[in-house]
Amino acid sequence: MSTKEIPYKIYLEEHEMPKAWYNLRADMVNKPAPLLHPGTHQPMSLEELSPVFCEELCKQELNNTDPYIEIPEEIRNFYKMYRPSPLIRAYCLEEKLGTPAKIYYKFEGNNTSGSHKLNSAIAQAYYAKQQGLKGVTTETGAGQWGTALSMSCSYFDLDCKVFMVKVSYEQKPFRREVMRTYGAEVTPSPSTTTEIGKKILEAHPGTTGSLGCAISEAVEVATSTPGYRYVLGSVLNQVLLHQSIIGLETKAALDKYDIVPDMVIGCAGGGSNLGGLIAPFMGEKIKGNADYRIIAVEPQSCPSFTRGKYAYDFADTGMVCPLAKMYTLGSNFIPAPNHAGGLRYHGMSPVLSQLYDDGLMEAVAVPQTEVFQAAEEFARVEGILPAPESSHAIKIALDEAKKCIETGEEKTIVFGLTGTGYFDMVAYEKFHNGVMDDYIPTDAELEKYFATLPLVE
Amino acid sequence: MSTKEIPYKIYLEEHEMPKAWYNLRADMVNKPAPLLHPGTHQPMSLEELSPVFCEELCKQELNNTDPYIEIPEEIRNFYKMYRPSPLIRAYCLEEKLGTPAKIYYKFEGNNTSGSHKLNSAIAQAYYAKQQGLKGVTTETGAGQWGTALSMSCSYFDLDCKVFMVKVSYEQKPFRREVMRTYGAEVTPSPSTTTEIGKKILEAHPGTTGSLGCAISEAVEVATSTPGYRYVLGSVLNQVLLHQSIIGLETKAALDKYDIVPDMVIGCAGGGSNLGGLIAPFMGEKIKGNADYRIIAVEPQSCPSFTRGKYAYDFADTGMVCPLAKMYTLGSNFIPAPNHAGGLRYHGMSPVLSQLYDDGLMEAVAVPQTEVFQAAEEFARVEGILPAPESSHAIKIALDEAKKCIETGEEKTIVFGLTGTGYFDMVAYEKFHNGVMDDYIPTDAELEKYFATLPLVE
Repeated sequence: MSTKEIPYKIYLEEHEMPKAWYNLRADMVNKPAPLLHPGTHQPMSLEELSPVFCEELCKQELNNTDPYIEIPEEIRNFYKMYRPSPLIRAYCLEEKLGTPAKIYYKFEGNNTSGSHKLNSAIAQAYYAKQQGLKGVTTETGAGQWGTALSMSCSYFDLDCKVFMVKVSYEQKPFRREVMRTYGAEVTPSPSTTTEIGKKILEAHPGTTGSLGCAISEAVEVATSTPGYRYVLGSVLNQVLLHQSIIGLETKAALDKYDIVPDMVIGCAGGGSNLGGLIAPFMGEKIKGNADYRIIAVEPQSCPSFTRGKYAYDFADTGMVCPLAKMYTLGSNFIPAPNHAGGLRYHGMSPVLSQLYDDGLMEAVAVPQTEVFQAAEEFARVEGILPAPESSHAIKIALDEAKKCIETGEEKTIVFGLTGTGYFDMVAYEKFHNGVMDDYIPTDAELEKYFATLPLVE
Repeated sequence: MSTKEIPYKIYLEEHEMPKAWYNLRADMVNKPAPLLHPGTHQPMSLEELSPVFCEELCKQELNNTDPYIEIPEEIRNFYKMYRPSPLIRAYCLEEKLGTPAKIYYKFEGNNTSGSHKLNSAIAQAYYAKQQGLKGVTTETGAGQWGTALSMSCSYFDLDCKVFMVKVSYEQKPFRREVMRTYGAEVTPSPSTTTEIGKKILEAHPGTTGSLGCAISEAVEVATSTPGYRYVLGSVLNQVLLHQSIIGLETKAALDKYDIVPDMVIGCAGGGSNLGGLIAPFMGEKIKGNADYRIIAVEPQSCPSFTRGKYAYDFADTGMVCPLAKMYTLGSNFIPAPNHAGGLRYHGMSPVLSQLYDDGLMEAVAVPQTEVFQAAEEFARVEGILPAPESSHAIKIALDEAKKCIETGEEKTIVFGLTGTGYFDMVAYEKFHNGVMDDYIPTDAELEKYFATLPLVE
């Protein structure tokens, strides 16, 4: 441990910012399983991926060999507007808890998208622009990804068509307006602007939509409109690659002060944040240079890691996307209405799934009300109002810090604070009013969904 | 000009952060006029102020002599959680505009209160705690101040009672929930919990409230409840003192790179942000060490500086507070329903009023729709979604930068970006839908309000 005094916020200098993303796959002993063509069940080739995704992003998706991929200068310049994000030493929280633990959190909420999503959105928009495209399509649920992509497209003068799950579109009108401020076209999904949307509306009049349906609509528009491609904010290898900026900055900041964490904790939905945060730590662990505990935290209502199956599954409920091998609850899984919209995906990043299967990381599922209790406890001391998603990591970080009070151990805890909760106040209100429930799917329910897995090995 | 490369964001190191606030009054040749007792019209003494405000804050209010007042360590530690705020070089905006101007903005929105208000809230809460008080009361309109105070009280375990203008309470339920997350008691004003509230409700059933009424209720509760005091987020000398942290950091960051601004621009409501931002620059200007243009920007719908009278007036519409000499539109002035809730105050900080009267600063009033156009133009390039209040400064900064395109002058423009607009999306929505109006009070309307001034000299 260094004798240098550790400040409340460790910022990297601009020249210390990473110039390349770290591609953890290059160092993984067991590579993540490839995406399979939904018809042939053969690995997807570059040619098959290219009509859907940008060319350069397809290459990144398939690249399991290069450990570092240079960040283009235009992206680095954009990063400089809101990065490096601070690594914050939670001195106030430690004092309030009376814990000997040392708590650090990497705060990704200090940008208008309100989360880490911008790290990949700007990269994907950049490559779309480089390819000479006119625009991109995507879906959004909670709205953080849609906001991030809107900001990025506005920066590069790209059209941005966002299909927003209808229930969110109606319940989160402010999110919609933020996207419109950045010039995005936001359509509630299912809509009558696509064939798949019309079909779904015919079959289920009055449906309030789902992420799976919105994905299908976005893919349809991307593949049927000249000059358009589809982009996705999580799960994919390329997204985890871009998000490695979080972990690289975190590790660089810790290294500056010779701090070695005992554990790294992150919330896990599709895995974009967790995969990025842990990347360089996991790399060191795989190489045997260090031994960190790495902990994924997920909601009990959507327990992909802790109760899912590791199997090939559809990435979307519309079953038009490639099959991915991942911890999954089944592509038809409908999570109970919890309030962490970003953690309601039925599957999990193939990279993280492989690491978890290899025993290189732990996972824990937590109930919603305890997550909001932790969020409020944190907010009142550290000031920041956390997103419900991020608060899953807070919950376990607090638990670990409290354990240290009993054991007297001075553990160093690092967790990812992915974003802010300004657009989640309906959820906080329910919590304050004592009308928030905890949902846990029964084994019988899960078995029903598992029965629909297309390729159980 | 230094040859050092200027980064996108200039952060001070923790040890470079100011250890004392700067009290501009000590260097003013013409001191701001004292507050007068509403009954006797004599200057308010410490004894007369103390039942309403915390003891130490009363002293700061009356202190026109000490140029520096030490920031207590507890407050400095809290500041370290979210400060120093970045001074951002708007490279992307400059490039997009094609201007030779160099644009810098001090961004105060990177904390959960969403604005600079936290700088004074934490100080006022600290002194309340030091005095052994049980709690504080306040009013809030747009909600930034109420949020900041809630956060600060939660940090120091103080009770916090917020009277929120009823129309905001109903239209901004999320703001209310943020305050509740920090443990504040939020009451829609006028309420039946106070005598003045009951009277107003009797006289005007169905009223949606006003800032003036909320102030009166907050003062009543503070002065009638043992262990409570009233706190205010703008206008007062003490608030400008605390907010000097903005200007001190800005100047220190510029000095690090030998940058001398040609102009410093800030939005002006009650003056808390503007007074803090310009303090050290104005100090240099008064001493003759530099000659900056200093520009206040206000809404055309509430033009205190540009069309108000410099006269003694009531600080609240309930006329229970001391009289302050300031540029005012009359304490009965009801601003048209513009969307910059923080810029709807009828008066202006006595310090800034005196400086403006002395010809040391300029003021300009801008129409609302142009402000939102500027906000959107800025957001699409610099990413940050600005508050409507802050966007007044953006509007003039953009105008000045565009002038430089024509003249070819490489002017250095510094402006204050006081906060984020996440809770103002209703206003953005109106703007997007083309249903936003510009309001300009007529001369006849203003004359009607001027006629109510209590002490025109």
